[in-house]
Amino acid sequence: MADNKDRFVNQIADINTDYTKWYTDVCLKSELCDYGPVKGTMVFRPYGYAIWELIQAEADKRFKAHGVKNAYFPMLIPQAFLMREAEHVEGFAPEVATVTHVGDTELSEKLVLRPTSETIIGNMYSKWISSYRDLPLKLNQWANVVRWEKTTRPFLRTSEFLWQEGHTAFATAEEAEADAMEMLGVYEEIAKDVLSLPVLTGRKSEKEKFAGAVATFGMEAMMKDGKSLQSGTTHYLGENFAKAFDIKFLDKDGTHKYAYQASWGISTRLIGAIIMAHGDERGLCLPPVVAPVQAVVVPIGAGKNPAVAEKAEAVYSALKNAGVRVELDDRDLSPGFKFNHHELRGVPVRVELGGRDLEAGVVTVCRRDSGEKTAFKIDGCETAIKSLLVEIADNMYKKASEFNASHIVAVKTMDEMEKALDGGNFTDAYWCGDRACEDKIKQAYAATSRVFHADQSHVGEHKCVCCGKKAKHRIYFARAY
Amino acid sequence: MADNKDRFVNQIADINTDYTKWYTDVCLKSELCDYGPVKGTMVFRPYGYAIWELIQAEADKRFKAHGVKNAYFPMLIPQAFLMREAEHVEGFAPEVATVTHVGDTELSEKLVLRPTSETIIGNMYSKWISSYRDLPLKLNQWANVVRWEKTTRPFLRTSEFLWQEGHTAFATAEEAEADAMEMLGVYEEIAKDVLSLPVLTGRKSEKEKFAGAVATFGMEAMMKDGKSLQSGTTHYLGENFAKAFDIKFLDKDGTHKYAYQASWGISTRLIGAIIMAHGDERGLCLPPVVAPVQAVVVPIGAGKNPAVAEKAEAVYSALKNAGVRVELDDRDLSPGFKFNHHELRGVPVRVELGGRDLEAGVVTVCRRDSGEKTAFKIDGCETAIKSLLVEIADNMYKKASEFNASHIVAVKTMDEMEKALDGGNFTDAYWCGDRACEDKIKQAYAATSRVFHADQSHVGEHKCVCCGKKAKHRIYFARAY
Repeated sequence: MADNKDRFVNQIADINTDYTKWYTDVCLKSELCDYGPVKGTMVFRPYGYAIWELIQAEADKRFKAHGVKNAYFPMLIPQAFLMREAEHVEGFAPEVATVTHVGDTELSEKLVLRPTSETIIGNMYSKWISSYRDLPLKLNQWANVVRWEKTTRPFLRTSEFLWQEGHTAFATAEEAEADAMEMLGVYEEIAKDVLSLPVLTGRKSEKEKFAGAVATFGMEAMMKDGKSLQSGTTHYLGENFAKAFDIKFLDKDGTHKYAYQASWGISTRLIGAIIMAHGDERGLCLPPVVAPVQAVVVPIGAGKNPAVAEKAEAVYSALKNAGVRVELDDRDLSPGFKFNHHELRGVPVRVELGGRDLEAGVVTVCRRDSGEKTAFKIDGCETAIKSLLVEIADNMYKKASEFNASHIVAVKTMDEMEKALDGGNFTDAYWCGDRACEDKIKQAYAATSRVFHADQSHVGEHKCVCCGKKAKHRIYFARAY
Repeated sequence: MADNKDRFVNQIADINTDYTKWYTDVCLKSELCDYGPVKGTMVFRPYGYAIWELIQAEADKRFKAHGVKNAYFPMLIPQAFLMREAEHVEGFAPEVATVTHVGDTELSEKLVLRPTSETIIGNMYSKWISSYRDLPLKLNQWANVVRWEKTTRPFLRTSEFLWQEGHTAFATAEEAEADAMEMLGVYEEIAKDVLSLPVLTGRKSEKEKFAGAVATFGMEAMMKDGKSLQSGTTHYLGENFAKAFDIKFLDKDGTHKYAYQASWGISTRLIGAIIMAHGDERGLCLPPVVAPVQAVVVPIGAGKNPAVAEKAEAVYSALKNAGVRVELDDRDLSPGFKFNHHELRGVPVRVELGGRDLEAGVVTVCRRDSGEKTAFKIDGCETAIKSLLVEIADNMYKKASEFNASHIVAVKTMDEMEKALDGGNFTDAYWCGDRACEDKIKQAYAATSRVFHADQSHVGEHKCVCCGKKAKHRIYFARAY
């Protein structure tokens, strides 16, 4: 029967022995995505794109609540723009794709595909901003960007990806820096409330900051292999791009000043974070807020019992009317196949309804996060299931938080660091602040500094994990995607 | 006072004497858009982008109701893909932008920026479709596309624009052709119910069809200068791309067959259609369904009368809570300036509240579409204004329909056609079906065939407007954007 023929859906690699293959298996077999024809590109299939649409909706409303408006800027940027900010071009030039021809005609100026839009937006801001009355200016765009990477992986690193980039301009440095911090807070809230994802947030080292920024603040999520996934960044740009693009305004005091800027972005990488932070040996485990299918109703033995089919339909309708994103799986396949299929796809709640359930007036509800099964009265089950979705989101956050807490190891020496990293942990270390030590740690253990620790209070009492000099910072080092 | 200083907002060219300058003035001064730094590119400013977001939301829900799912495919397409469908490459090659380098490295294969995605999606469909069970497959993507045009105009023709492209595959020709027709119907519904825009729909001539299609169906909107704006197209692709990309399936009868396909798209051009079909000497006139601001509350004399300020705030809140997209304009500027400003921006309803209104317990409501002013009781005005927005949308559709009806002229001869076109009309003509006649009309009068007339019943009784031979079709000829 179809059951056996289709068992392949369950053939994903073992998460404990081959995490890398497990990841790509889950991506492809749950039909989140596929590889594109050009190396390093990917296709967002409907199931994966639907997650992104849900993330977008949740993020967009939060941005708008912060007074941000959406706009759209050209993707093609004059190559010369990139050159204007020295660090910016150095950081991005090697991975920038360049358009030289249209049809058979060579273009008079080379154009690059945006790797990020500080430059072209800076160019427009210089036109739009002339008075303090024009400030603050807070725009965001949802767009595709291109960064040509040598090693690529679906969602994590592809030559083209989807993201949002916020670009803000203010009259004062304080406001711009505050914006970078505030948006970091918004990202943290999205991670928690939308993705059930606990994160570490804080400032990044000079080495790890955005090319062209004064300071970069990052949000790091821990994956189940103990590696970090940078899941969002905000940048305080100071006057760097304002000077490069002549963004000046006449202030209240009658003098001309450069505007201060910030920028911030999250991307389709977040889908990778969801997969790797919540997934398990059975596949995806989607946070209810962004699950394209929040519940699936599976009638059991409906072929022999029309009353089951009928009631399953009624339960499906009740859930749909209650605003739950629900599917009715009445395909002619065995329940076992269906269970595996929906588990692989990470559907948060499975609602089983068989003859015995019907007699008892209940549905059997199975949670994807815990595997727990409970009987719910059919009448009003939609309300109970809506509450359960909230409980599942909370529990997923709690489980991931516990995992994180048990995988952050305080280390005093390089040996301790190595052992902790090899054990699949983040390390909580003291550091002198010198780039040389960061380089050494990267070379020795393939780990990088992630973000400064929230608590910097006793730093002076400690020594650098690497060189032993007096520490200036408490910071997380980890391997990262 | 600020009033005089800022009168510039009203300095748009006269719509009757310089329609072209009127159009760009309206685009720029209402801050819908701006020119990008590269010739032929544009920036969607927040006001213009917000219209697009509203169009997207309305279209997206209709597509989903038709069983279409969203996905996202790579923007970079191997140049070789374009070559596989002979007509397709001929049509698009001259305007296609090509990426040759990343950083300093030359790419091993040339990549083009999608001008449309039939080819790359065809490539993926060949991977995903293997059985009749995989059909129909109905996907859509919201994306940017690049077509390098020599003459450009904001919204109408820019090197990069935003659109949606639906790509569907079916087991039979009938289903694919029906899909192209159905989606044309969806587009017509969007034009009417969302944009208050009456359109002509029908099949296009061989000369005007999409490069690679078996048949193209178009939706044409009449602008106030009597020119046509192609506002959406759907294509029946037959097996053309299926053969080029080997999209085959095992049918129920055990044989392998090529899939039949359709594709369809609407773009940010629709914003141009709104501007030119509804705008007037005072600027934009936005259809309520897609107006980013549906109503603006303007307190009058609030500086001297705190009760006015307070009540204006209350009216604003009532409208907001009723789900109206509303702004409160309490800037320290004269009412006259504000009125001009919001008229230029095409806000459908202005709600004035002065001391005398307050005493009488009313607001004075002014319609942008007709200029009509009515006093509404303050209590419950939000309900009345919501109804008024519906009435405005209907009236705008009615006005545009009347304009269209009075600007379609039946012509029997070339002289009549010239006169009608020069008078700012569409022409309703009979045509022999020969390309030579289309070419001659284009050369003589700069007019092209738009779509076949809905009524083809008495065609055989007529002669071709151009060559006098027996007519095969009744068709509209018009000048077009």
